[in-house]
This record gives sequence, structure tokens and C-alpha cells, in this order.
Amino acid sequence: MKPLTEITIRGYHVDGFGHVNNARYLEFFEEDRWATLDARIGLSRWLKMGLIFMVVNININYRRPLAPGDIVTVATRLERIGTTSTTLKQEMYLKSDHLLVADAMVTYVIIDADGNPVKVEGELAMELAKLNDDQVT
Amino acid sequence: MKPLTEITIRGYHVDGFGHVNNARYLEFFEEDRWATLDARIGLSRWLKMGLIFMVVNININYRRPLAPGDIVTVATRLERIGTTSTTLKQEMYLKSDHLLVADAMVTYVIIDADGNPVKVEGELAMELAKLNDDQVT
Amino acid sequence: MKPLTEITIRGYHVDGFGHVNNARYLEFFEEDRWATLDARIGLSRWLKMGLIFMVVNININYRRPLAPGDIVTVATRLERIGTTSTTLKQEMYLKSDHLLVADAMVTYVIIDADGNPVKVEGELAMELAKLNDDQVT
Amino acid sequence: MKPLTEITIRGYHVDGFGHVNNARYLEFFEEDRWATLDARIGLSRWLKMGLIFMVVNININYRRPLAPGDIVTVATRLERIGTTSTTLKQEMYLKSDHLLVADAMVTYVIIDADGNPVKVEGELAMELAKLNDDQVT
Repeated sequence: MKPLTEITIRGYHVDGFGHVNNARYLEFFEEDRWATLDARIGLSRWLKMGLIFMVVNININYRRPLAPGDIVTVATRLERIGTTSTTLKQEMYLKSDHLLVADAMVTYVIIDADGNPVKVEGELAMELAKLNDDQVT
Repeated sequence: MKPLTEITIRGYHVDGFGHVNNARYLEFFEEDRWATLDARIGLSRWLKMGLIFMVVNININYRRPLAPGDIVTVATRLERIGTTSTTLKQEMYLKSDHLLVADAMVTYVIIDADGNPVKVEGELAMELAKLNDDQVT
Repeated sequence: MKPLTEITIRGYHVDGFGHVNNARYLEFFEEDRWATLDARIGLSRWLKMGLIFMVVNININYRRPLAPGDIVTVATRLERIGTTSTTLKQEMYLKSDHLLVADAMVTYVIIDADGNPVKVEGELAMELAKLNDDQVT
Repeated sequence: MKPLTEITIRGYHVDGFGHVNNARYLEFFEEDRWATLDARIGLSRWLKMGLIFMVVNININYRRPLAPGDIVTVATRLERIGTTSTTLKQEMYLKSDHLLVADAMVTYVIIDADGNPVKVEGELAMELAKLNDDQVT
């Protein structure tokens, strides 16, 4: 997985224990999801059609604490396409030594303008598959 | 100023120096602004008319550091109504000994559905004046 | 599960889609974890002994979108004690109709002052079991 | 002022009105303060001496709303050195057309390990003056 996002941990990222707080990791992962969706698929086109990507599950493992001065990279790839759901796999690494800091599975349902889940097939599935384009080459 | 909001400082509120971070104070103040607007004026009615309260300036003094276990109260009152702007004054106190923790002046412009600033007069000014009703009695 | 925490959703809690953002739910759950640990077990005593509760996994289901004006309650109970890990189960409900909004399993490892995981047994296990005291009666 | 920080506004940055929330601007400004302090002065050296930069006042003007897709740059320079306080001036611009989005004056007091304010003079003043080095040339 090629990282798109790089974040330097600052004093304002960490909590009273001196470590980045668990909710903050989700923001780092979210930043990379949008950066990735933005860079690799025509997201704004889908949003204009009234489609909403709604997170239905996040399963995140916290593997190493992060402290100010640490630099992390985040990468996102398509893990699985189900009937109406899509799962992205995300990983966060220490830039210095490539140790895994955290990983997450983030599952979306795509909802149309009427609030109904959209089947992930055809053009939409092909578009989502582009998320892994850089893994292939 | 009668406080509407009470917040217990937790470990996740504080940063690497062990103190609540400056941006977090703004969230505490924002919570009380909405609680106050909600409780004392028919805010949703104004929002339905397409009016948006847009913050144009915040001037905040940080007077005491906050640590986990501290309990603070927040209070908001109307400070001033200008031609097109409205200024709220907010104060945050330690609940235990009523010491002032922070205070802020928050200035809004109210914008109509076309994006134009609305003159604060007539019914709108009377509605906003209700923010200080509990101070009067 | 008896809820300890009640939160009114405000405009500043929601994102560009008009719904509470996924990372924000974690803060709501975290607030109730601390409120619960604080209210039911002598947490500060454990922290003074140098023990740190480190989150190693969060598995969260997002079941309903939340919009401004919604009021939610959050409840936390002990789900499971393992050899060195402890799992809390958390649920968030709409206050109005008790519909489930989100639920999460949050797994901790307790770390001592030397950074080593602590076995959850004896007095520590008994203390953690108090988290479910109100469920029993 | 040369910008060090560039941020792409995402859906998770904005609130229910579709605009970046006022507290979030403070995080963007804080990011650039640390990036600037980090890049231009030996900040970690001062922190190791037990000095803490404590914000005592922020005065921020919000001049334009920000929406997803906007890209902003943030720049920070030293505005003023007082007896025991230091004021930084920060500006946020739309990258596309250099329109001013927000500006802030952020005033610090530097506190020593005993909690006393430190006079900003001698070597410390010279170090802080480096914040404007790129403005001079």
C-alpha cells in the first residue's frame, strides 16, 4: 500500500497520557480516505449524483502509541466489495522505521438520494476498483 | 451570568502539556452558545427562515490552565447589538471556587438566505435581547 | 445498561452531510467510558499506581445517522475480562424512542509503569467487575 | 508571510451549515504555529529546559467561509515581543486566489518549570526573532 498522507504528530494531537488519543487516529484515517477517494476515483461526480458514502462499521487496532515528533504515513486500499457494502483497509506506519502503528477496516454502505442502499456493481464497482490501481503496477 | 453548561475535564480533553488545549475551549464555549440560544430564543424558527449565525470574530482570554478532574461551568450573555452584528460574552469558571478560567467575546453577523447581512432590529433584536432575561430578574 | 451520559447533538457536531461524523462518536463513547470508570471504580487510585488503560481495539457499528436536535444517551458495561485485556461494551441510543444508534466493543490492555501489560486478576478484576454493579441489582 | 502549511478542506472539517467550524480554524492555525516553531527555532531545546509556551489570548477574524474542496495555506510570523509575552500573527489564505480567509493574533506567555513567566530578552528574544527570518530576506 502506497501512502498518500503524512502527518507529523504535534503536542495538540496527544492526550493527558502523552499519546495520540484513539479518536484522533480516526481523523488521520479519514483524512487519507478522502485523499485517496479524491485522487483515484471521481468522487465529486458520485456525490453530485446524490450518493452518500455512509460508514457502517470501523474495526481499528491500535498497535503502537504515538508521541509528539513521530511522523506517520497512512495508506488506504479496497479490501472487499459486497452486495451493498464496500470495505477499505487502512494502515498507519511510523515513517522512520515502517513499524505498523494502527490498522483499520472501514465498511461503507453507499446510499442514494432517497436513502436507499445502492448495489455495488457495474460502473460503480469498476470505479471503486481503481482504488487499488497503484497496487497492481 | 447563570451557567447552563457544566463540563468535567477528562484525560482526552487535555494535550501533551497536561492542560486543555486552546481549541478545545472554543468547543466548550460553542456548546454553551447553542445551549443558550436553544433555551432562551426560538433559534430553530430563525434557522428555518434561512438565517445563519456566522461567527466573524472571537477574542478569547485564557486565564487558568485546566487539568483532568476539574469541573467548569460556562455562561453566555448578550453583550452588544450593533447594526448588523451581535456580540455575546462568555465566561468559564471553575465550579469548585468560582475562579475565572477563560472569557470570550464572540461576534456574529446574521446572514439571510441570499448571503446578505441582516440588520439586527425590530423583532430580531427583541428576540436576541431575551438572551439576558435571567440577568434582569 | 443504565446510561450515564446524555448528549444533545448540535450543529458543530455534524459534518458536511448533516450527520455526526464517525470520529465524533468515539468522543461520545470515550466521554461515557471515563464517566463510568470515574463513577463506579476507584480509577484515580489505579492511575496513581502508574497503571495506564491503553485501547488496543475498537469495533464500532454505526446504525443510525444523527442530526442536530437529536438527544442520545450512552451506556457502558464490562463485557469480558481476558488474561491481560478487558473489553467494555458501549451502546448509544436515541433518548426519544430508545432506538440503537451505535454500539462499540472497546478493548483495553492495562500497562504498568514499566510499560508491561498487567494480568487482570485478583483485586484489579474485582474492581473492574464493579462496572456492572448496577446491572445486577 | 511565506506559508508553511497547506490544508485541503474535507467533508469532515465542515459543520452542519456546510462551512468549516470556528474551532477547527484554531487547529489549522495551531498546526502552522508548531510547524513554524519547529522549522525556524530550536523549539525542542527550549521545551527540554522546561519552558512551556502558554496561550493567553487569541483574537481571530473569520473573513470567508470555507467549504470542502477549498485549499488553504497558513503562515505565521512574529508580531511583537513584550516584557513577558510574545504575539504571533497568523494568516490563512485561499490558495487559488490568495483571498484572506482568516487572520489571528496569538499571544503567549512562556512559563518556566516553576510556573513563573519568563522575561523575553537576550538569547530567547533572539531565538524568537528567527521566526521572521524569511520575511527579511
